[in-house]
Amino acid sequence: MADRGVCIWLTGLSGSGKTTTADVLVPALEAAGRTVTFLDGDRVRQHLSAGLGFSKEDRDTNVRRVGYVASEIVRHGGIVVCALVSPYRQARADARELVGAEAFVEVFVDTPLEVCESRDIKGLYARARAGEIPAFTGISDPFEAPDHPDLRLDTEACGPEENARRILDHVVERGLLPTSLTRS
Amino acid sequence: MADRGVCIWLTGLSGSGKTTTADVLVPALEAAGRTVTFLDGDRVRQHLSAGLGFSKEDRDTNVRRVGYVASEIVRHGGIVVCALVSPYRQARADARELVGAEAFVEVFVDTPLEVCESRDIKGLYARARAGEIPAFTGISDPFEAPDHPDLRLDTEACGPEENARRILDHVVERGLLPTSLTRS
Repeated sequence: MADRGVCIWLTGLSGSGKTTTADVLVPALEAAGRTVTFLDGDRVRQHLSAGLGFSKEDRDTNVRRVGYVASEIVRHGGIVVCALVSPYRQARADARELVGAEAFVEVFVDTPLEVCESRDIKGLYARARAGEIPAFTGISDPFEAPDHPDLRLDTEACGPEENARRILDHVVERGLLPTSLTRS
Repeated sequence: MADRGVCIWLTGLSGSGKTTTADVLVPALEAAGRTVTFLDGDRVRQHLSAGLGFSKEDRDTNVRRVGYVASEIVRHGGIVVCALVSPYRQARADARELVGAEAFVEVFVDTPLEVCESRDIKGLYARARAGEIPAFTGISDPFEAPDHPDLRLDTEACGPEENARRILDHVVERGLLPTSLTRS
């Protein structure tokens, strides 16, 4: 009997903590013996979407492409963790439909813009405010927050370990991973 | 115990019979209870590589991208069948390395150019001869035939059923699929 596939999709502003959370989540899944594909912005731009920019059209193409790869991995019973700004509601809904709603876990990394901007780890917000980066999500391009995410994370009150644990608990509760994972 | 992953990579000229062979191979694998991702030229252009053209650089990007997706599917124990002209030796070698040589089956659909051109199912050779399609493999762009493919198919002497069977037998002989498949 093959394992069930799962797609854990983290959406949120740049600097919200998507990759930081995934960097705890992915090794925890691997430690439990599962194979995981991790698709964050940088990996995706390298392996799947070199040449795409940040216009709405290119972002939609990017999210659709990741959704397609995620859906194939889930069909094979694999786990895929996607960490992408994915600012548009419709594109996320398309990914959910492609993967199949029962295997899709939308995690909203709900860090306020002011907090992301004050962190500004990559210096992107400063450049966006200076007008050096066009169509930057949160500054000059919209982030359409999920109305009904499967899970909403608070990265101010909770650290990445606690947030990764919350995701694992949710996935186990949904019956998508065995209970043993909550005890690891 | 999870199934082992396999990447079956069909390379050959346009009209050589890659997709025709895969259209028999893929259902045979599915009938044996396996999940298969089928990436042929049209699907790839739709889901992964919209916007890429047919220059050497774009072809290499395309093959690298398919190789990446194939390698992830194989890591998850899945079967992926790729049917792409993939005319450049180095790009195919890169895909083999990314997937892992032990799980990579290079199938050379070795139909001579004259035969492909006389079939000309999509009318592409006529357009290429007329100069309407630049850098068309076999006409105005090279096809670097594999020196040591895992398997070489003759589509004049054998039909697609027999060729699909030869691929299955090879994959089973390599220990990548269970013996039961040869009896299906």
